[in-house]
Amino acid sequence: MGTPKSTLDPAAAAAPAALATTISLRQPYLLFLGDASHSSRAKTALGVYDWAPEACAAQLRLPDCAVDLGLPELSPAEAAQKGIGSLLIGIAPIGGQFSDGWLPTLFSAVEAGLDIISGLHAKLGDIPGLAEAAKARGVRLIDVRRPPAGLPVGSGRKRRGKRLLTVGTDCALGKKYTALALARALRAQGVAADFRATGQTGIMIAGTGIPLDAVISDFTAGAAECLSPDAAADHWDVVEGQGSLFHPAYAGVTLGLVHGSQPDAMVLCHEPGRTHIWGYPDFPTPTLKVAIEEYERAARLTNPKARVVGIAFNTSMLDEAERARLLADTERELGLPCFDPLKTPLDAVVQRLLSL
Amino acid sequence: MGTPKSTLDPAAAAAPAALATTISLRQPYLLFLGDASHSSRAKTALGVYDWAPEACAAQLRLPDCAVDLGLPELSPAEAAQKGIGSLLIGIAPIGGQFSDGWLPTLFSAVEAGLDIISGLHAKLGDIPGLAEAAKARGVRLIDVRRPPAGLPVGSGRKRRGKRLLTVGTDCALGKKYTALALARALRAQGVAADFRATGQTGIMIAGTGIPLDAVISDFTAGAAECLSPDAAADHWDVVEGQGSLFHPAYAGVTLGLVHGSQPDAMVLCHEPGRTHIWGYPDFPTPTLKVAIEEYERAARLTNPKARVVGIAFNTSMLDEAERARLLADTERELGLPCFDPLKTPLDAVVQRLLSL
Repeated sequence: MGTPKSTLDPAAAAAPAALATTISLRQPYLLFLGDASHSSRAKTALGVYDWAPEACAAQLRLPDCAVDLGLPELSPAEAAQKGIGSLLIGIAPIGGQFSDGWLPTLFSAVEAGLDIISGLHAKLGDIPGLAEAAKARGVRLIDVRRPPAGLPVGSGRKRRGKRLLTVGTDCALGKKYTALALARALRAQGVAADFRATGQTGIMIAGTGIPLDAVISDFTAGAAECLSPDAAADHWDVVEGQGSLFHPAYAGVTLGLVHGSQPDAMVLCHEPGRTHIWGYPDFPTPTLKVAIEEYERAARLTNPKARVVGIAFNTSMLDEAERARLLADTERELGLPCFDPLKTPLDAVVQRLLSL
Repeated sequence: MGTPKSTLDPAAAAAPAALATTISLRQPYLLFLGDASHSSRAKTALGVYDWAPEACAAQLRLPDCAVDLGLPELSPAEAAQKGIGSLLIGIAPIGGQFSDGWLPTLFSAVEAGLDIISGLHAKLGDIPGLAEAAKARGVRLIDVRRPPAGLPVGSGRKRRGKRLLTVGTDCALGKKYTALALARALRAQGVAADFRATGQTGIMIAGTGIPLDAVISDFTAGAAECLSPDAAADHWDVVEGQGSLFHPAYAGVTLGLVHGSQPDAMVLCHEPGRTHIWGYPDFPTPTLKVAIEEYERAARLTNPKARVVGIAFNTSMLDEAERARLLADTERELGLPCFDPLKTPLDAVVQRLLSL
């Protein structure tokens, strides 16, 4: 970084990079539920099925499997015949390793011509013989935790189209689901909108994306630029946020994402009662007012019009009366639409977006 | 990042990590000048010799070499006999590749029992046979662009001792030399002080450090924490800055470094006449006043006492009268000691530091 990287012609570099540097998955999926003993172990499959049911064509369960999504049961060969593109490993065992009991299924999938998609810590290419089999059959082994090669340095160039980024007072309080719900609500209004995934489950749902937290720091903003390329003037990219500007470990990732996604609009996510950064008792979460100011200040480096347009609360631990009171009080205090993306309508925030 | 990493006992994790996760080089060096046709090609060797002459015991030149540092000329075998620890590749050919003409020297160095240190883009381990030879001989091939494995996530825990970080209005305007000069000036006053390197040349000078721009973004703050571990209450770590908070590609790296190094003091580096971020004509550099405010705001997340204590100018393109006027005018305007680390005394800023 001491010597700035070449940025001689960022405009010329951006267009092809946007295609080449983003993970791209072959949908629909055959969801592999393996030997999941409980739905908590199949969170990946459940999340993908919840948010992208059209991408989930079938399921494959081993004899001990206690989870059933009610999808057609297909073997890899049957799935390939029906035009399914990939076997998606939908379970997350403790330790993040592949179980020996899965290996016959993984090899059958390759043999049948399916790609294999994994979000586990262990790498598909480390399974003895699988990479060779995949190469011979012409299919891909895709670890969605691994970023694509060749990500560029950020250019700072303003791109066409509109962008929304979900941001947070902390990690792990609903930025992904808020972005998914907003993209869905925009499309329901007839607005062209794409969810842009920055984490592994999001990538599986969208079928494309970049795992931002695994990118080398010099390329974080550039990766965010690749993720939401030039688009039509009235098109919205709804970008999944990561981390928090108030997090002592991850604020840098968040700032790179804010700069690279150059959002026109941000939705601030918060969980009521979260008084401290998760796992960091010495770091209080900011007030909503301070968080709004800081995100707007940060975002205006690459988009002077950036503004927070709404607050998304994760109210899963509140009852209905408490939820209604919180949303009404905060709306009055901050003058912004407030909602819970999984529990209340998004009409007001969508109206606010479309009026920008 | 969606699920926060374990931070159950950050204090317990920090101490051993500080040792295991930092590059450590065996000094003194045999500086390899190769076939350098001009001193501009030997910038690495010149920088290391300028700032760490005590670490440069000898030089090794090929027949065509046009650069001479005036050091004793030793073969790898002679160097090893005299207790030299490493052959340091001090030249940077266009393209960043190893020249075929160097290979006999590199293999001789391994055979003689020297480590080899490189900052080139090409990796030492990719030279056919060299890794095997090094393993057999028990020496190391060290690419200082490659961060150590096992870096932790930032803990945010306040560490003992004092820390100074150099920060900038842009990249490439003197943050490394300012940090080196400050560490040297502190030691000249009898203060215990260490330069902490975050880039490749700095690592070669210090013999230790972490190449921060090559770290995966989730671990940037954690790497900065490892770099300046707990120390005596009156000890100063002087940390080499990277990037700039005002840079559309690198601000995230800078923010992670600011948070992880938790500076008590920052020195702001600027080059007069640099009106825009280098290579980014749409991005103006900030005023010094704005830069001071933004760095202090950012740093106070992990150190509420953080403050800017001086301004370092790169005045290489000014004459003496212009330099004197710039420093005097800026001191009056901002009330902070102003200096050029390579041209003017550092007494005032060192006094300010010691009065904190």
